[in-house]
Amino acid sequence: MQLEQDEVYDELLVNDLRVIQKKDGFKFGIDAVLLANFASKFNNMKAIDLGSGTGIIPILLAGKYMFKSVYGLEIQDKYVEMAKRSVEMNNLNDKIKIISGDIKNVRKLFGRESFDLLVSNPPYKNNGSGIINDLDSKSIARHEILCNFEDIIIAAKYLLKPNGNFAVVHRPDRLVDIFYIMRKHRIEPKYIRMVYASVKKDAKLVLIRGTNNGKCQLNFLKPLFIYDENNKYTKEVNEIYYGI
Amino acid sequence: MQLEQDEVYDELLVNDLRVIQKKDGFKFGIDAVLLANFASKFNNMKAIDLGSGTGIIPILLAGKYMFKSVYGLEIQDKYVEMAKRSVEMNNLNDKIKIISGDIKNVRKLFGRESFDLLVSNPPYKNNGSGIINDLDSKSIARHEILCNFEDIIIAAKYLLKPNGNFAVVHRPDRLVDIFYIMRKHRIEPKYIRMVYASVKKDAKLVLIRGTNNGKCQLNFLKPLFIYDENNKYTKEVNEIYYGI
Repeated sequence: MQLEQDEVYDELLVNDLRVIQKKDGFKFGIDAVLLANFASKFNNMKAIDLGSGTGIIPILLAGKYMFKSVYGLEIQDKYVEMAKRSVEMNNLNDKIKIISGDIKNVRKLFGRESFDLLVSNPPYKNNGSGIINDLDSKSIARHEILCNFEDIIIAAKYLLKPNGNFAVVHRPDRLVDIFYIMRKHRIEPKYIRMVYASVKKDAKLVLIRGTNNGKCQLNFLKPLFIYDENNKYTKEVNEIYYGI
Repeated sequence: MQLEQDEVYDELLVNDLRVIQKKDGFKFGIDAVLLANFASKFNNMKAIDLGSGTGIIPILLAGKYMFKSVYGLEIQDKYVEMAKRSVEMNNLNDKIKIISGDIKNVRKLFGRESFDLLVSNPPYKNNGSGIINDLDSKSIARHEILCNFEDIIIAAKYLLKPNGNFAVVHRPDRLVDIFYIMRKHRIEPKYIRMVYASVKKDAKLVLIRGTNNGKCQLNFLKPLFIYDENNKYTKEVNEIYYGI
């Protein structure tokens, strides 16, 4: 498998999985790794990842957590093409389909109520917050330029089976928006786990699972800490990266 | 100051403050102590506590955190009378007024937009969840029998000045309800702090501050742990109890 000049391989530490990344573009982070793990309990189901980027989440779901069928929807053509090569490189062509298209356009791309699980590692920042230099791939991945959180939930409402599940990783400072929009569209938040940099630091990420038409009952899980007192990954994070 | 036969004093550990409690009724807990601390930054303002119970929160706000003026609204007459005696015992009559009345009836009791801060340590459980044996004082304090969270927010919307603040302690499993109802009535959540029993345990309480008509911007604060690895109060909790 050939790499383009501006690309590198990254290894995913288990099952010899690898993913191609742009040297200077948006790279997947611990967010995607934690989200795939948080969604992994639904692993014999049909899943879709909205805003798939490098394809990291479909590759982890199918290659590490043994999902049978995972679709990745991505709007930026250069990532679609690159993610397809990563899927091929990992011999996951029979399980993963990377689709080029817009989250706002899912009605033309997929059937209604056709997925058991929808995951997304969406842009974190409200369009308008933070400094956006230009419409490059990093900005599109980080800011709500091409889609906002409500677009994702509207897509999820169409794509998910009546009792299907939704899993997302996001920034804690967006939690009011997330809960408000999920409940508004009746994808009820059921599990939340805060991710703190360390015991004494602020919350860095939040993992949320919701259920389409679910009852109002939130389970607040114990905290996840990324670094220990020596600034090394905690045992739990190492297990998420290296374990199966 | 005389105690009734079914009453005891509890000391509040600072400033010689004491509060009268029923031996067998609802007793204040760490929730009220953490909430008073979390609300204490507004201490030169006019505050009201909805569902005041023993009067613990007005007594802490006025007697420990030096608020100038605190109202406590309580629906159960036996607590109103007892809380008044606690206020008198602490010589806080000039700062605290305990009022008998229903949260749903605040329009008849107070002027519109007359408070800078509204605090509440409300019933935690949805009416219908959990087992309710009878309508005793413990059930009323713990279940949403006489008021629910939306009643509190509707009262807050009436009572708070246009940019007034709201502070609440609640159970983490009610967080979707809380955020949804606050945003619906435009008392925007601005600060959240999770309270965990310990580093390895589930979230036990959540502290939230909101601002009437505030901008959408949530600040997710670092976690608060109640117990350390030896099952003793952490340094921070000791400081909240004993510090000023």
